Order: sequence, then structure tokens, then C-alpha cells
Amino acid sequence: MDKVKEYIERNKNKFLEELFELLRIPSISAKSEHKKDIITCAELLKSHLEKQGFNNCEICKTKGNPIVYGEKIIDNKLPTVLVYGHYDVQPTDPIELWNSAPFEPIIKKTSIHPEGAIFARGACDDKGQMFMHIKAFEILNNNGGFPCNIKIMIEGEEEIGSDNLEIFIEKNKRKLECDIILVSDTGMIDKKTPSITIGLRGMTYMELELTGPNRDLHSGHYGGSVINPINELSRIINLLHDNEKKITIPGFYDEVIEYSDFERKKMGSIPFSEIEYAKSVGITNPSGENGYTSIERRSIRPCLDVNGIWGGYTEEGSKTVIPSKAYAKISMRLVPNQRWKKISQLFSNYIKKIASPNVTVKVSEHHGGEPYLTSTESKAYKSASKAYEDVFKKEPIPTKDGGSIPIIAQFEKILKSKTILMGFGLDSDAIHSPNEHYGISNFLNGIETITKFYYNYTK
Amino acid sequence: MDKVKEYIERNKNKFLEELFELLRIPSISAKSEHKKDIITCAELLKSHLEKQGFNNCEICKTKGNPIVYGEKIIDNKLPTVLVYGHYDVQPTDPIELWNSAPFEPIIKKTSIHPEGAIFARGACDDKGQMFMHIKAFEILNNNGGFPCNIKIMIEGEEEIGSDNLEIFIEKNKRKLECDIILVSDTGMIDKKTPSITIGLRGMTYMELELTGPNRDLHSGHYGGSVINPINELSRIINLLHDNEKKITIPGFYDEVIEYSDFERKKMGSIPFSEIEYAKSVGITNPSGENGYTSIERRSIRPCLDVNGIWGGYTEEGSKTVIPSKAYAKISMRLVPNQRWKKISQLFSNYIKKIASPNVTVKVSEHHGGEPYLTSTESKAYKSASKAYEDVFKKEPIPTKDGGSIPIIAQFEKILKSKTILMGFGLDSDAIHSPNEHYGISNFLNGIETITKFYYNYTK
Repeated sequence: MDKVKEYIERNKNKFLEELFELLRIPSISAKSEHKKDIITCAELLKSHLEKQGFNNCEICKTKGNPIVYGEKIIDNKLPTVLVYGHYDVQPTDPIELWNSAPFEPIIKKTSIHPEGAIFARGACDDKGQMFMHIKAFEILNNNGGFPCNIKIMIEGEEEIGSDNLEIFIEKNKRKLECDIILVSDTGMIDKKTPSITIGLRGMTYMELELTGPNRDLHSGHYGGSVINPINELSRIINLLHDNEKKITIPGFYDEVIEYSDFERKKMGSIPFSEIEYAKSVGITNPSGENGYTSIERRSIRPCLDVNGIWGGYTEEGSKTVIPSKAYAKISMRLVPNQRWKKISQLFSNYIKKIASPNVTVKVSEHHGGEPYLTSTESKAYKSASKAYEDVFKKEPIPTKDGGSIPIIAQFEKILKSKTILMGFGLDSDAIHSPNEHYGISNFLNGIETITKFYYNYTK
Repeated sequence: MDKVKEYIERNKNKFLEELFELLRIPSISAKSEHKKDIITCAELLKSHLEKQGFNNCEICKTKGNPIVYGEKIIDNKLPTVLVYGHYDVQPTDPIELWNSAPFEPIIKKTSIHPEGAIFARGACDDKGQMFMHIKAFEILNNNGGFPCNIKIMIEGEEEIGSDNLEIFIEKNKRKLECDIILVSDTGMIDKKTPSITIGLRGMTYMELELTGPNRDLHSGHYGGSVINPINELSRIINLLHDNEKKITIPGFYDEVIEYSDFERKKMGSIPFSEIEYAKSVGITNPSGENGYTSIERRSIRPCLDVNGIWGGYTEEGSKTVIPSKAYAKISMRLVPNQRWKKISQLFSNYIKKIASPNVTVKVSEHHGGEPYLTSTESKAYKSASKAYEDVFKKEPIPTKDGGSIPIIAQFEKILKSKTILMGFGLDSDAIHSPNEHYGISNFLNGIETITKFYYNYTK
């Protein structure tokens, strides 16, 4: 095993130079003027895969940005790992808040990374994390070859919704068949506390449009005698929670997994301070569903938030109007085993039931995704866990994230395979923000952990 | 008395021509490019007053648009009437919805006005109604002279809030001393059902700003564990009414005048159909405070409406955000003897009491005005009532309006005089809208009624 560490030590400058080359390409998927850069980036990745002996390397066309694919089948009797990552990056606005050019990567020391961190757009999300896999392949290749079959799929539209990825995997189900999927696009608790994300919340995102009177009315002439859709919308929103801050939609909790006291206690052992948490967002106290801790509320419990509301006069000054319409965008984060389509339906039914007959309610669905949960008992999880422990000298904590990565649930649905989220990012990495960076040690430890995963998994 | 009718019949074409000249001046107070037109309009009115023998005719400068003033003191022992009106008009947008140019008055027949109506911006509000008074002066002048002292004050900022009028009347308290004030800037029930507005609601207009977390948060990572200011704002708004749709602010109803069954029955005799009312605004049923009719709810009862609400993501599509802030504009219509400053304070105290300690609440006051009520027992009211009855062959119904004209309460406060609102407009006149118009018969009947008021009042 020392060979892995040694190889990394010997090649780290080359690894960084290669990553820098990748980071210099402004492959922003949200901006059409970067189409050429997207192609350049895909071609560079293809050449990297070819260099590691992948066969059938392809730049697969989609309706949007291409997907880079490669595979190396050693032996059909051996297990197959599918790696997923993305080469597109977020836009750089607000550009004036960057301390160095986003596509001219440089190394700077920070308090968290005294050994140095790579500053560039995509350094962590996801070029840096995705490239760790390609460098793990290089190590495997130079130390006796791949111990199993490996497939890799790197998309260019993750930052704009992965619309064409789902179509691609539907079409290539056979080709993408695998035993386990590896993704490095998440984080760990802190630099010294490794963790593996085993749960993600799902989501359903809805919009309400309430219509009261058929036009805006003068609030003096009509006020008090005609329903006001904003007042009514507030009433409806308020009815969605009870005094215990439980969601009141009938059937909403029916499929929610309840955890045993033992499991909740284990969850509670994750280093976390309620006081520091409140302070970090400037509120007096965390709050939410009665009977749960903040960690639980944002991981194993579903929730409902109004993400936007508008209606009537919203400019400066005053206007005495009873508006005809009022709107709200409402999303619900879901947990296993809730299904988003069913929850959307329950939500819609309930809203229509509680709304006054004096308003017309239109409920529409923006999008959704299923929650995801993977077991800590699988061979793949145990192999990853042992690899982290080898590198970080600490058993990684299995955590459940409050956010959603809908594509992970889609992988399971279409490919019937579980995913191990081997993330090495930190909250402080400023992904999606100015001055995104990625610790050099996170990058190198990631390469080592991923490489060791393969040895553990195929042992 | 026939002399009045006869004079009008003989001079109606001249009256209309003179009104048309006034209507051709685009005296829009909201747009600074019309400053010159404002002056032209004020000068034309001054010359009209001089023609009727008013003394001390002045164009009184203010910080904004000037006020035209004139007076004719016959005898200090005789009563004094003060007439108030305004010569400024609303903007014409959306101009494309006008069927004729707003400042080129023309006469067209309508189903309500088969005898013809004057189409122009300001035809009813308020040039047409204000000019009826000047024409009444002409009739008085040509039929034995003024029967009492008359003062007239015509402002040019009514459509933009009358900010400088209050300063003017404060400064000129002595000069404006009077026994009664006459204003024609309201309407009547319908063309054949005269009415006199004896009550106006007051108002207080507030704004709420709720701050939860110190920045917008990702609703996946934080959802369920941190207060969402939009959800909280909805809860607060909902708490402002109980299930009977009564306002829950402690002390809110303390000063509200309760009417006897007899008075409410009389009020109920006004021609009004709840079904037609609902239909006219496209709702299933009127609704509001339990135990009251729609007429009562919008005249003798106070109410609370959210006039605007906003927070979070309100553009197309979706964004998963827990916003830092949420806002609402909330106005309350008040009835005698509520006082708006006190109600603002009660509102503010209550909001702060019910808000969660996890949000910061800023309550601010936009503006307000006192409710107004005048007696049907005064000599002035009876004189006006008899004049309407002479002209329309029907006793006018005393009505209470849901809207607010704050300056009327200010007149009472500063000048210690009551106002008689002798309005001749109709709901269908489209004031503030495209194709504003004023029935020729409303205009001529108005002149006759006003003239007869003076004879009744000085008898």
C-alpha cells in the first residue's frame, strides 16, 4: 500500500500541473459563449482517459453539452465500477470579488490549508474532485493494472440541471451497467473528520397562484367586503404547519423512515454546536419541528419552505390596492421513503381543500427528485470507509445531507445501482462563490483514498 | 326657482364650451413636463373667478403647484361658504386604451348617458365637478347676486397627495374661515338615485420588514432548522384576523361607532344586490367580518388588507432559497371614532408581540388620515338634500364611502368646519382610467343643485 502514497508523493507536481491545465479552460455551461471551451475541456479529458488505457473513449453528443465516456473491461467476471463527475463549472459573477483570475489557478496558503490551496473556478466543484479519479486510475495502471472493470462518464451540464444526462443513461442502460457508482462531488465534516454522505433529501418544488377578484380593486371602496388573495395566501401557508412545526398535509409523513433511539444517538455524536450554528446564520436560536435536533431537522426530517412570495404593490411608497392575484413558490425537502410525485399530489389536494371557495387556486409543479439513502453495510461502503480510515487515521462518519442531488436517485432507478459519495470538499471551499478553492492535501488525500477503495473493493 | 333651470337651458352650450377649454389643458400633476400647463390652467380659473366678481383673486404659490383662491364677502353678518376643488388631473396611461385623445374633449352617447357624455381626462375628476361651482356662481350673479359670502380654493396637487394644501390651510386659517365647506369630488348611487356622502373611512398604511437569517440560505442545507421569514410573515398576517374575520389587534375596535338596528336597517334600504356585487368583481361571494352586509363592511366597519407582499425568489422558474428578508405593506381602513395614530401604535405593538423571537421585525408607517362623519341634521346638509330633491325628484340617500379623503378630516381639524360632499359622478365614469367621461345631464343637474343649495342655505 505504501506504493500508492509514494507514487503520489513522487508525482504530485505533475498532478497539480495537469489539474491546472484543466482549470484554465473556462467551461461555464450557463453561458453559450463558452461552447468552444466546453469542447476543448471534453477533448482534454478524453485524451487523459486514453492515456490511462481506457477503450471506446468517446465524446458523446447530446442536445446540449457532450458527455465524455470511457471504459476498461478487464474481465467480465470481475465487478464493474462506474465513476460519474462533471467538467462544467459555475459562472464567475460577481467577478470583482475574486482576488485572482478565476481561470488562472494559483496556490495560496489559508488558515485551513497552511500547506496551500488551489484557487480557481472548478478547483473543487467538480474538476478537482473528478480529476482525483483519473489520477487514481494512473496509479492503478502503474501498479499492476486495474483490479476490476471501470467505466467513467463525465458530463458538461451539471451546473445547469443535467437535463441531457438522464436521457443519455436511459439510452445507454446496457453500456453503463455496473455494480457500484462512485461520485466525488460532496464534502466532509472538516479537514480532520472524514465523512461519507449516505443520505440526500429529495425535493418537490411547487408554485401557487391565487386569484381573488378579476382585477385589482381600490382597497378603500372594496376593503372588508371582498376576499384579498394575499391575506388568503398567508392563511393557507400558515395552515401548512401546526404549532409543533409539523407539516399538516394529510399523509405527508406516512413513508418517512423513523430512526431508533440508538441510531439518533449515533447521529448526535457528530461534532456540532447549536449555538455556533445559530451564530453562523445570525439568528437567536435554531428552530423547527419539535422533538428533533438541528442535525436531524436538516437531514432525516422533511420540511416545507416558502422560497418566494409576491403579490400587489411592491414598489416604494404605498398603493391602496386589493390585488387580483398572489403567488408563492413552495418547496418541500423529502426523506426516504417519501416519493416526490405522491407528495406533490398530496400538497396539491390539500391546498385545494383548505382554500376559500372565493379564490381560484392554480397549483403547478416546477420539478422534483427522490430522496436517496445507501446502506453502511454494503461491500462498497465498507471498502470506502476503510480507505478513508487508512488515509485520515479516523473512521469516516456516515452523514445525511439536507440538500438534493436528484441524479443519484435517477442512477438507482435507471441503472439499479447504488452510489458511494466519496466527497473531499469542505464547507469553506466557496464553491459557486468567488475565490473557490480546494486544499492541496484534500486533493492528494482524495487520490489516495480513491485508489485504496479499489484495492479494498476487489480484495 | 325656475330662473335657475331656465338660465342653464339658455347657457348650456356656453357652459360646455367653457368646460372644454379647461379640459384641453393637460394639467397632469404627476409629470413635471406639464408645469406650464398647470400654470395655464390656474390662470384660466383665476380669470373665471374674476369674471364672477370675486375679489382678491390670487394664484397662491406653494412648494409645488399653485392654489387658485378667490373670495366675495357680501356682508360679515351673512354665513360664509368655502368651496374646494382641484384642477390637476391623473396621467393618461395606458394611452392606447383611449378611444379619443384625452385632452380633446368630445361628446359621445353611452347606454347610461343617451343624452351624451363628455369624454376627456378630468371631465369628471375634478374639472367637470369643480367647474359646476363656478357656473353656479355665474347663475347667482346674474339672478340678484350672491346670497352669502363665498370663498373658493382650487388646488393643483390632489392627484399626488395634496402635500402643500395642508400647509396652505394651516397658514391661512383666518382667511379660510367659513361656516361650511362644499366639495364636489365624489359620486352618487346611480343616475336616478341621488346620494350625499356623509362618511369616509380613515386609513393607516404600514410596512413590515422581517429579517430571519443574516443572508439568503440554501433551503436544502438549512431547511427545517432555521426560521423562514416568509413562513413567519404568513403566520403573523394570518393572526391579524380571527375565524369570524374580526381584526385581533387588542383595542382595535374600542372607538368604533356601533350603529342601532334602526340605522342599519335604513342603510340596508340602499339599492344593492350582493349577487350583482360579487359578479361585478368576478368572485363567488362577497366575504368579510361575520354579521355584517357588504355595504356595512365597506362603510361603517374597519378592515385590514395586505396591499403588497414580497420576499425570496420571485422570477421565472425555481430557486431553493430561504430568504433573509420578507416584506408586506398592510393598510387598515378606519371608521369614526378610530384615530389613525393610535391604531398605528396598536398595530405595531401587536406585531412585535406575536412575532417569533427568531426574527427581527421593523414596522414603519407610510401615512394615514382620520375617518370623517357629518350629520344629516345640520342646516347645510338639509339645504343640500332639499336641492337634490328639487332637481332629481327624489330625496338623496346619505351614504358612507369606503374610501378615504384625508383632507376632509384635516379641514375639520384645522378650520373647525364640516364639509358637505355634493358629488355627481357615477361609478361608470372611469375616473383615473382610460375614457374618463361625465354625463352632460350630471353636469347640468349638478350646476342646478349647487345653485339651489345656496338659496336653501340662506333662506
